[in-house]
Amino acid sequence: MSKPTETERCIESLIAVFQKYSGKDGNNCQLSKTEFISFMNTELAAFTKNQKDPGVLDRMMKKLDLNSDGQLDFQEFLNLIGGLAIACHDAFLLASQKRF
Amino acid sequence: MSKPTETERCIESLIAVFQKYSGKDGNNCQLSKTEFISFMNTELAAFTKNQKDPGVLDRMMKKLDLNSDGQLDFQEFLNLIGGLAIACHDAFLLASQKRF
Repeated sequence: MSKPTETERCIESLIAVFQKYSGKDGNNCQLSKTEFISFMNTELAAFTKNQKDPGVLDRMMKKLDLNSDGQLDFQEFLNLIGGLAIACHDAFLLASQKRF
Repeated sequence: MSKPTETERCIESLIAVFQKYSGKDGNNCQLSKTEFISFMNTELAAFTKNQKDPGVLDRMMKKLDLNSDGQLDFQEFLNLIGGLAIACHDAFLLASQKRF
């Protein structure tokens, strides 16, 4: 097999990260709230450590959990990653508009 | 700054890949159809080279282009990546169910 492209590596990473955290307890195909908090505090610590409001992860989990089953499935997890990517992309565009 | 986590690297990659292909012609914040085809044939060649139907990229572009402006914005591009990740994740789950 040839070397994976950047996009293929990224798809692989998203699956691997989801499986790593969703496999910690209970249902392997879902992130429980404890697993979600563990994911956020480890993988996105740059985001969580600047949050002064202790309720922010609670509210994020509720907002992401579209079917309100108290768990995040892979689609709900991807909505989080997509939302963060869009926020970063918008911030980048804004910064480049200011610069030029 | 500390080393980025796998999730942070992935978000960064998604933005970098989108900017690389959307910057090839015209509007820098949108993938034109030519740019989309170039992205698919380069980054996801493992998928496109097995497609015998020449109309498949045409139909994918139409389906992804939610606002029908003939271009894919970053959100529409992320829907493609998300869709592919979910298909891979489902295939993986199916394969592991068969195995055990």
